Order: sequence, then structure tokens, then C-alpha cells
Amino acid sequence: MRMVTSRDVARLAGVSQPTVSRALRGLPGIAPATVERVRQVAAQLGYVPSEAGRALSTRRTRAIGIVADELTNPFYPELVEPIRVSLEQNSYRALLIPDSPDAPLQLERLADGTLDGVILTTAALSSSLPGLLRERGIPCVLTNRTVPGEAFDSCAFDNAAGARLAAEHLFAAGHREIAVVSGPAETSTGREREEAFTAFMADQGRPVRPEHVVRGPFSFESGYRAALALFGSEDAPTAVFCGNDVIALGVCNALAHLSRPDIAVVGFDDILAAAWDLFSLTTVRCDRTALARESVGLLLARIEDPAREPEQIRLPVDLVVRDSSRMRLR
Amino acid sequence: MRMVTSRDVARLAGVSQPTVSRALRGLPGIAPATVERVRQVAAQLGYVPSEAGRALSTRRTRAIGIVADELTNPFYPELVEPIRVSLEQNSYRALLIPDSPDAPLQLERLADGTLDGVILTTAALSSSLPGLLRERGIPCVLTNRTVPGEAFDSCAFDNAAGARLAAEHLFAAGHREIAVVSGPAETSTGREREEAFTAFMADQGRPVRPEHVVRGPFSFESGYRAALALFGSEDAPTAVFCGNDVIALGVCNALAHLSRPDIAVVGFDDILAAAWDLFSLTTVRCDRTALARESVGLLLARIEDPAREPEQIRLPVDLVVRDSSRMRLR
Repeated sequence: MRMVTSRDVARLAGVSQPTVSRALRGLPGIAPATVERVRQVAAQLGYVPSEAGRALSTRRTRAIGIVADELTNPFYPELVEPIRVSLEQNSYRALLIPDSPDAPLQLERLADGTLDGVILTTAALSSSLPGLLRERGIPCVLTNRTVPGEAFDSCAFDNAAGARLAAEHLFAAGHREIAVVSGPAETSTGREREEAFTAFMADQGRPVRPEHVVRGPFSFESGYRAALALFGSEDAPTAVFCGNDVIALGVCNALAHLSRPDIAVVGFDDILAAAWDLFSLTTVRCDRTALARESVGLLLARIEDPAREPEQIRLPVDLVVRDSSRMRLR
Repeated sequence: MRMVTSRDVARLAGVSQPTVSRALRGLPGIAPATVERVRQVAAQLGYVPSEAGRALSTRRTRAIGIVADELTNPFYPELVEPIRVSLEQNSYRALLIPDSPDAPLQLERLADGTLDGVILTTAALSSSLPGLLRERGIPCVLTNRTVPGEAFDSCAFDNAAGARLAAEHLFAAGHREIAVVSGPAETSTGREREEAFTAFMADQGRPVRPEHVVRGPFSFESGYRAALALFGSEDAPTAVFCGNDVIALGVCNALAHLSRPDIAVVGFDDILAAAWDLFSLTTVRCDRTALARESVGLLLARIEDPAREPEQIRLPVDLVVRDSSRMRLR
């Protein structure tokens, strides 16, 4: 007897495969009437989407690898922790797998048969890893990263919208000469945030000067060094947009070192430290709990149905205005 | 043929078992002449201490569980990362296993047959876990924690010496009314640091007032709340000793909130953020790379020879004086 798949349900219900998965998992974004129709068709065909039911007939380790950069970079624990929680809620164990510039990840580490799937949080735009994992039949989702095209499952924040919010905020406060301390150009997160910010400023007739753009790792040290170089002189920019909050923490500390509390700073992510009094960092709030839930949902759907259409999810963001960008224009 | 153990080498060389393990692993603290004698005896008996050699004849997963609190508490990544690196250098994989107050660790998680050993970084003084693990035959080492008695392998910093250095420093700067924001009394780390600090002050005839001692988790929030309560009034203490740096970061931010930059703050651990300009935190430097190396050494020795005598290691610490305690007395 052929097993009923989510494709059969999709065909009969007249919706896409991802819609079936999302509807049956109770994820948001599907109209109630559609959810109801999908459920009826699934019941009619005897389709069983539950992980537990499927696990009985398959060889599963119930372990998922989370590939992340060094945990001493405070962004990564705050990204990894909700993913771990979401996996545990789905009865999966999370295995943390490091991938730092010093010790790049080896495919063998992911393909040794101990993992049911992989969540990649560090993939570069040119990474061959998603393709290699697919060749080996290992389910994989890109989280907080995308690669070009629509070949892979991914879940990321709307970086362009967030960067525009940041630019509008600084522009409305009167800033015209703004520096950008960006993340790596070879990551979707770094590139999308920088491009949207500089595009907005160019549209206002105040393009960011090339000498005011610094790119580097998403690290404290990168932000610290960049700010020392950018803001050491009198005719420095009046504000700085940072590729993420960890970079911004480095910038804020360098500005304290330079005694330049007048410079406005905006970050991206809203990590825990952004709200601390000594930073009070204006930033773009990213709901990492939602990112984790959606990413795990994509991965479990892929494990359940390896042939389903890849799905790219973008999550909305908003601006949180704090002291780091208030009353900072002379 | 009976396999030669480190006990045989110890007997013939006239030294203890731990000394044999340390000598053959090249760890510090053993006289060169002793190392030479141990090596000669080991060669004579044909004793093979190498993990690789042993693994051939044993059932090993080459996976070690690291039990840690939530990684969003910045102390834990900085403790876990060097342990992970040290394990990898010994060809072991590290599995991170969470143990937070919200979701206490279950023994079954450690005893499911997937781990060759466990490194416990969260054990309370009364924890039954080390004993339960031993009953199940699972090698275990306590790291940054001890339990009473000498029944288990442990590696921790010299908390009493560090707290005395902090107390001497603040006392020498003229502080006489000092608050203590301590870690949990049910952990060796929390209790040892608090007791040594308050004992020093009592010896100087300036005992810490009971109302100036606050105990809580080793967390930012705990330090923040305690400082708001302690330093909201005019006749507050002039300085505060914190149970660790994460508590101290909370205290520093609360003092910024209260506009009380005059209060001297001393932490414990020297995490990365302690050196940031906006904190510039005086603290007790703890060499976590050494802690990781020694802890992994203890665990591998225990795996190699389950019958060896338990060993308790204490690592020295020193004081790093920064701005948070300089020129802060009125």
C-alpha cells in the first residue's frame, strides 16, 4: 500500500504542499477556511502528519544539528536557545555544531548518520553546504540566512525593511552624514541590511560616502575597531548604522573610549544587552522565538516529506527607539 | 591476559594514581624526575595510556555531555567554549545539555547510553547527580563546582583566595561599608566567595551588615534588582562585591540607572564584557582555558581508569583592577 503524502492532500485540497504542512501544524498565515478544508481532506485520505506516528516506521535519531558561530559571540546563544527549546517541544534533541572562521565546518560532521536534519545559521551566500546536504539526503533549513534562488528552505527576517526603518529614523532626526559598520558582504544578512540602508540614503540625495562604510565580521571587535577609525576625527559622521547589535556594542564602547556620546547609534536584532541602561541601544527588533518556531517547522516538514517544494519565509521586524539615537544631533 | 592499569604503574613507581595520569598526559604540577620515573615504569609494563589505543577495545561513543545553565547567561558560553575545544583536541565530541532552574536536568538524559562521560558545571552542593552517575557507571567531573567530601573528581577556582583579594583591594581603598550581591548559597561557588569576603571584613572589625547581603541566581537580573534595592538611598554602602561578573554587569547597569557612578564595583570571573570600556570592571581573573583543560584531563583519566582515586583540583586566581573600583571613594 502506498503511503499517503502531503502531496496527495495538497492536490485534492487544491493548495500547495507548504500550505498543507503549515495548516496541519497549526502555523499562522493560512486562512481558517483553508485550514478546515486541508484537515477534512487529510482525514478523508487517512494522512498522518504526526512525527510520532511516522517515527515508528522510519529510522530516526531524533537529533538535529544546529550549526552556529562561536557562542562567546552573544548573538548566537540568543539565536540557538529558542531553536533548542522549539526542537525539544517537538521531541527532538539539539546538537550544537560549531562553525567559526577559525574552524570551518566539515560536511562529514553533519553527514555521519547521527542527525535527522540540520539548521544552518552561518551559511554564506556562496555556501555549497545546502546543496551537498541535499545530495546526501540530509534535511536542512537556512535560518537567519538565505542563498540565491529558491532551491532551499529558509527563514530569515525582513532585513531590507528593518534597515529602511533605521534609515528613516536617523534621517528624520536630522542626520545627513551617517556611517555604516556592516556585517560580511558574503552573508545575506550583512548584504541585505547594508544595501537597503545605503539605497534609502541615496534616494534622499545623501548617499553614504564610501569611506564611511566598513565591513567585517558580526563581532564586538569588528565594531570597536571600525568606530575608532571612523570617529577619531572632528568632521566624523554624526550617526552610525550597525549591521547587528553585537557590532553596535563594540561601536558604543569605542565611542565611550573616544568620549563621543554625541554620536547616534542604531543596531539590528534587539539582543538582550541592547536594553541595558549603559547601552540603551536603538535597534531593529527581530522576534527570534518566531524565527526558531518557523525554522523548526520548515525542517520538520522537510523531514516528513523530502519531496516538498522549498519554502522561503520572511518575518516582519520593527524599530525600538532608545537613548542611543535620541537627542544626539548637535 | 590481564590488562596493565595505571594502578600497576603507580604501585611500581611509588606514586599515586592521579600522579601517573598527570605525568603521562604531560599536565603540570609533577616534578620532572617523577615524570621520567613514571614513563620508564609505564614503558617497562607496556602500559598504554592513549585514548585511541584504548578505544579500539572498548565500546565508546566519543561524546561527552557538558551540563550548563542557559547560554543566554554570558558566563556559560565562556565556560563551555574552552571545554568544547579541549574535548575536540582529545577527539571527543561535546554535547551541550541544558540545566536551568526552569527545566532541571533529568538523570535519564545523561544515562541514555549516548555519552562516554559528563562534565557538570551547575551542580548544587546537595546534588545527588554525581552519586547517581557513579552508580550507573558514567564517568563525571564537577567543573567550577564542588560537593562536600572528596568522593568525586572536581576542578574549580580558588574562590576563597579570589574573594580575599577583592576584599583587601576595597578595604585598602578606604571602603568600610561594603555590600555583597552573592550567588546561590546552595552552590560551592556562591558560598565560598561570599564566606571568604565576609570573613575578611569581620576580621578587620568591619563586618558586612546582614541587610547589605543579597543572594540570588548568577544572573544579570539578580544583580540589577539587588543594586536598585541596595543603592537607592543616600546612606547606602560605598562599594559592592559581586558573586560573579554577570551579577556585576547587572549592578553596573542599575547604578547607571540610579546615576550612582561613585559606587565601587568588583566582580568575579573576568568574562569578556568585564574589559569593555562601558563597564571597565575590576574583577578576579579566572583562567577558564586552564579550568577546561584540567577538567577534561580529570574526566579522561576517569574514563580510562574508573577505579582511580577521586582528585580535587583548585586553580589559582588573581585580581584585575580596572576603573569600576578606582577613585570611587568620596
